[in-house]
Amino acid sequence: MNYQVIIEEAFEEVKKDPHTGRVANYIPELALVKPENFGVCLSTVEHQCIGTGDWHEPFSIQSIAKVLSLSLAIKLLGKKIWKRVGVEPAGTPFNSLVQLEYEHGIPRNPFINAGALVICDILISELQNPYDDFIQYIQLLANDDSIGYGAATANSEKSEGYRNVALINLIRSFGNIHNDVEVVLDFYFHLCSIRMNCRELSRTFLFLANGGQDPVTKKRIVSSSEAKRINSIMMTCGFYDEAGEFAYEVGLPGKSGVGGGIVALHPGQYVITVWSPGLNPKGNSYRGMKFLERFTTCSESSIF
Amino acid sequence: MNYQVIIEEAFEEVKKDPHTGRVANYIPELALVKPENFGVCLSTVEHQCIGTGDWHEPFSIQSIAKVLSLSLAIKLLGKKIWKRVGVEPAGTPFNSLVQLEYEHGIPRNPFINAGALVICDILISELQNPYDDFIQYIQLLANDDSIGYGAATANSEKSEGYRNVALINLIRSFGNIHNDVEVVLDFYFHLCSIRMNCRELSRTFLFLANGGQDPVTKKRIVSSSEAKRINSIMMTCGFYDEAGEFAYEVGLPGKSGVGGGIVALHPGQYVITVWSPGLNPKGNSYRGMKFLERFTTCSESSIF
Amino acid sequence: MNYQVIIEEAFEEVKKDPHTGRVANYIPELALVKPENFGVCLSTVEHQCIGTGDWHEPFSIQSIAKVLSLSLAIKLLGKKIWKRVGVEPAGTPFNSLVQLEYEHGIPRNPFINAGALVICDILISELQNPYDDFIQYIQLLANDDSIGYGAATANSEKSEGYRNVALINLIRSFGNIHNDVEVVLDFYFHLCSIRMNCRELSRTFLFLANGGQDPVTKKRIVSSSEAKRINSIMMTCGFYDEAGEFAYEVGLPGKSGVGGGIVALHPGQYVITVWSPGLNPKGNSYRGMKFLERFTTCSESSIF
Amino acid sequence: MNYQVIIEEAFEEVKKDPHTGRVANYIPELALVKPENFGVCLSTVEHQCIGTGDWHEPFSIQSIAKVLSLSLAIKLLGKKIWKRVGVEPAGTPFNSLVQLEYEHGIPRNPFINAGALVICDILISELQNPYDDFIQYIQLLANDDSIGYGAATANSEKSEGYRNVALINLIRSFGNIHNDVEVVLDFYFHLCSIRMNCRELSRTFLFLANGGQDPVTKKRIVSSSEAKRINSIMMTCGFYDEAGEFAYEVGLPGKSGVGGGIVALHPGQYVITVWSPGLNPKGNSYRGMKFLERFTTCSESSIF
Repeated sequence: MNYQVIIEEAFEEVKKDPHTGRVANYIPELALVKPENFGVCLSTVEHQCIGTGDWHEPFSIQSIAKVLSLSLAIKLLGKKIWKRVGVEPAGTPFNSLVQLEYEHGIPRNPFINAGALVICDILISELQNPYDDFIQYIQLLANDDSIGYGAATANSEKSEGYRNVALINLIRSFGNIHNDVEVVLDFYFHLCSIRMNCRELSRTFLFLANGGQDPVTKKRIVSSSEAKRINSIMMTCGFYDEAGEFAYEVGLPGKSGVGGGIVALHPGQYVITVWSPGLNPKGNSYRGMKFLERFTTCSESSIF
Repeated sequence: MNYQVIIEEAFEEVKKDPHTGRVANYIPELALVKPENFGVCLSTVEHQCIGTGDWHEPFSIQSIAKVLSLSLAIKLLGKKIWKRVGVEPAGTPFNSLVQLEYEHGIPRNPFINAGALVICDILISELQNPYDDFIQYIQLLANDDSIGYGAATANSEKSEGYRNVALINLIRSFGNIHNDVEVVLDFYFHLCSIRMNCRELSRTFLFLANGGQDPVTKKRIVSSSEAKRINSIMMTCGFYDEAGEFAYEVGLPGKSGVGGGIVALHPGQYVITVWSPGLNPKGNSYRGMKFLERFTTCSESSIF
Repeated sequence: MNYQVIIEEAFEEVKKDPHTGRVANYIPELALVKPENFGVCLSTVEHQCIGTGDWHEPFSIQSIAKVLSLSLAIKLLGKKIWKRVGVEPAGTPFNSLVQLEYEHGIPRNPFINAGALVICDILISELQNPYDDFIQYIQLLANDDSIGYGAATANSEKSEGYRNVALINLIRSFGNIHNDVEVVLDFYFHLCSIRMNCRELSRTFLFLANGGQDPVTKKRIVSSSEAKRINSIMMTCGFYDEAGEFAYEVGLPGKSGVGGGIVALHPGQYVITVWSPGLNPKGNSYRGMKFLERFTTCSESSIF
Repeated sequence: MNYQVIIEEAFEEVKKDPHTGRVANYIPELALVKPENFGVCLSTVEHQCIGTGDWHEPFSIQSIAKVLSLSLAIKLLGKKIWKRVGVEPAGTPFNSLVQLEYEHGIPRNPFINAGALVICDILISELQNPYDDFIQYIQLLANDDSIGYGAATANSEKSEGYRNVALINLIRSFGNIHNDVEVVLDFYFHLCSIRMNCRELSRTFLFLANGGQDPVTKKRIVSSSEAKRINSIMMTCGFYDEAGEFAYEVGLPGKSGVGGGIVALHPGQYVITVWSPGLNPKGNSYRGMKFLERFTTCSESSIF
């Protein structure tokens, strides 16, 4: 398959559309990013790496970090984590708080904020030095020691995160947060603040496209079965209230962040990352969604 | 891959467990079926057909029919149907009615009852002779003229379906049902009442594992792109409030019915149908779920 | 107290405001009524009767009938009815269906549609000839044999009442409707269709301002304690999602209907009825609310 | 009316019942109080004061303080406060968070926790020295300089109040909290911690039974119209999810607290306070409710 040509064509096609979506403005640091940014990178399990546009520009990965924290929690504790968080899609965003009440503080899945906060709580309990240990894990996945937290973004989020404070205290009232809520929130905002570019992010997710093993370093990160299961959760829960739309239009497991990044992968073949900070009304990258629709249509590489 | 051996072993393994789940008792006709029934059939796109247990015993396909009615609506109207029904997972069953209110009568997806009722309404508007035309479509897919409605089951459901009557009237109040509610409900109950055995059901779904084309008769049913999209909806919405669990444990697109049937498929390879009428607490076949978990684990054929 | 002067002044004051609210248009028959209609009648327990404006013009009493059906159910069965319906305010209208699910088919109070349907179901079970017996009860209260059902309005409602059909079927699915849903709905729509003018309606409610006894005929309708309790339910639940507002601004127990009528009463003193068919956004008579605010302010007759 | 005899008889009657309800245990300090405590005090606007049982024993007034903070906010700002909080009953407790989302951070009324937090926020903005100014206001109402905060109880609540932290942060996310959330919560917990006995509490509420004016000192606290309106909100919203039941069974405006106190009043006549710390399943004093039912039945002093 000539991915290079398909990527270039899809990229140019989407770029023609003057519409870029709206940059998230509830986090001051994110609001500074220009909506015109647009980059793509595809990394294959056979070490190929193709990119275009602003693919060397670092951005805040935001919710994409939730896949990485989940993978570490699974690596450390295995199936035990499913006592504290579910694997079901969440329905309308309107339901977030009512669902927690109805289901007694067990978040529906690890990719909604409530679930990601529980995963952070688990990591804080399990890791000796949570901040150091986590970033080292990311550096291992990225095979790159320069990856770090974006302190400015983390602090920027904390100043406006009233809704997350509401959420974590509600979960805490049901006993499903074991550490201090301030500590868990700070760790959570730091995870979301990690900065990478498209190339680094594709590289980081490569183990999930390769049955849990890094195809370059040959290091095993999670078991083959665990990798499949993480991918399945991306499929059903990776795109806020647009997971079904993404499965329908793109047909790959993936995860998006409000920083405008989307990572998607074809098991056994590749990881593709696209970044454009303008968002659609559901909070996913406007150009990112468009590009991936075109890409899987032209490359006929939906998993369905 | 030696599917025969894997199927036999998984079948025997699951059969050892004395637990069978509970047969649905809210529909009088279904309550008569013995929980010990257990059959499996796998049909490949290369015309292989393997079965075991009660795979020649017909059963009521119930909600599995929702995939078939959706495929016919897509065949007839294409993307236009998505103005009247969404493609997103629905969240907790508790939300069904409140979601319709919140989203103004547009059901979240075509596999929850609300959405299936809207699809039935569409078919009644589009088909000359809905009952005849629909069963002929099923006979075409099954390549078998003997498939028919189960009148007793249909009437049995109608006598107790107060909740469905509530649902359709609520949708009607938002203007998203265009035909008489009694007519739509009767058609809906007839669709659910269709009887097939595991072999027939696998055969019927084969076009969805083969890019929309019947691999035996070579007749095109829907486009390749449409087939992929139907599969993606099965992935995200096919198992009531256990879609995430099924994606996580089995890793195939599929659809279950309260009659105890489950159809799952691996795009490009096979359809597998399992039937055992005892249900788990979420309403999916207890043994069916167990069997498919083992089957995809042993055959390593999750799509992730 | 010179009620005559206070009523005239408040009436003229409110009439000056060119705004009348919007006439309910979801029931075709109601949509025909002119928004300019405006009438008031006060009847005291000491046989005084004062009126102004269109107080001899009959209108559809709609939900005001729910107080009368409740009083008859209490007369017939006493406290037993509270096993099937509650006495708590219902919160947002959005909650109506979700509340029934959460509370297993027991409506929160007898003045929301769900509760009024259960009361109708009770009356159908208890009365020999529900339609005749009920209208005779109303004629007894009104001391007037000419009161009757408004057949055109009843049929007009039936043709558009999808939401009520949804509601009653949902309650039925929990076993809290014992008669045929069609029969209960027809009876319900007939109750709502009863036509009276302001004078007749004030007369009809007089027993509730007089401890359960008709102050003119001296007939006892309900016990003193039952009258107080019916009044308390009007206080907390009589105005859809504006019960608190009415208690706050007017300070009397009362009940409104979408036909534009409002009945309010001061225990031990009087009943006051106002009719103006234009409604405010919460569904209560725009001028009716305004008038009663002025009236209780000027007469200082809030019960608080 | 010989209130003394009626009170004694009702008191003895309720005391016979060995059942006392369960003392609230989610606040450590409250859990220490003995369930057998039971006291009553009635104060009339004509300076009569009658008591029995443990009526000189101080207890934590808890949510009863919400009426006093509301009265001060009204005194300071008048109707302006209704832009930030409503006057409607709240429906099921289940709805608390979902209601805030649905109605964009405007709590339904000032007596649910969400609304009381907004009132506290208003007082912090308006008062020079909130803690001092507020307790002086209470001392003025009680005509007693010894009334103070219960620091131990306030701190005890703070340690377990995750749900209130969730609530206030959710309201804050909609912009309806203007001060630091920690500051508002601390003030709120201090208000709830105020300790009084039955006699003092009846005295404190006397102005609301006397048209807003203290009948002893003749000081005007709020206008007659404001007093009526505060009473009306107690009527519709004073008893958590049992406001309708209280209106139905007792028929007086009132307010309860989880400390086991209930204050009720008959406009123009008296305030009656009852305290017994064992609660019924809805969170209102078990014996308090029973006593007031008997009292208003025997004295025939329901306002309906």
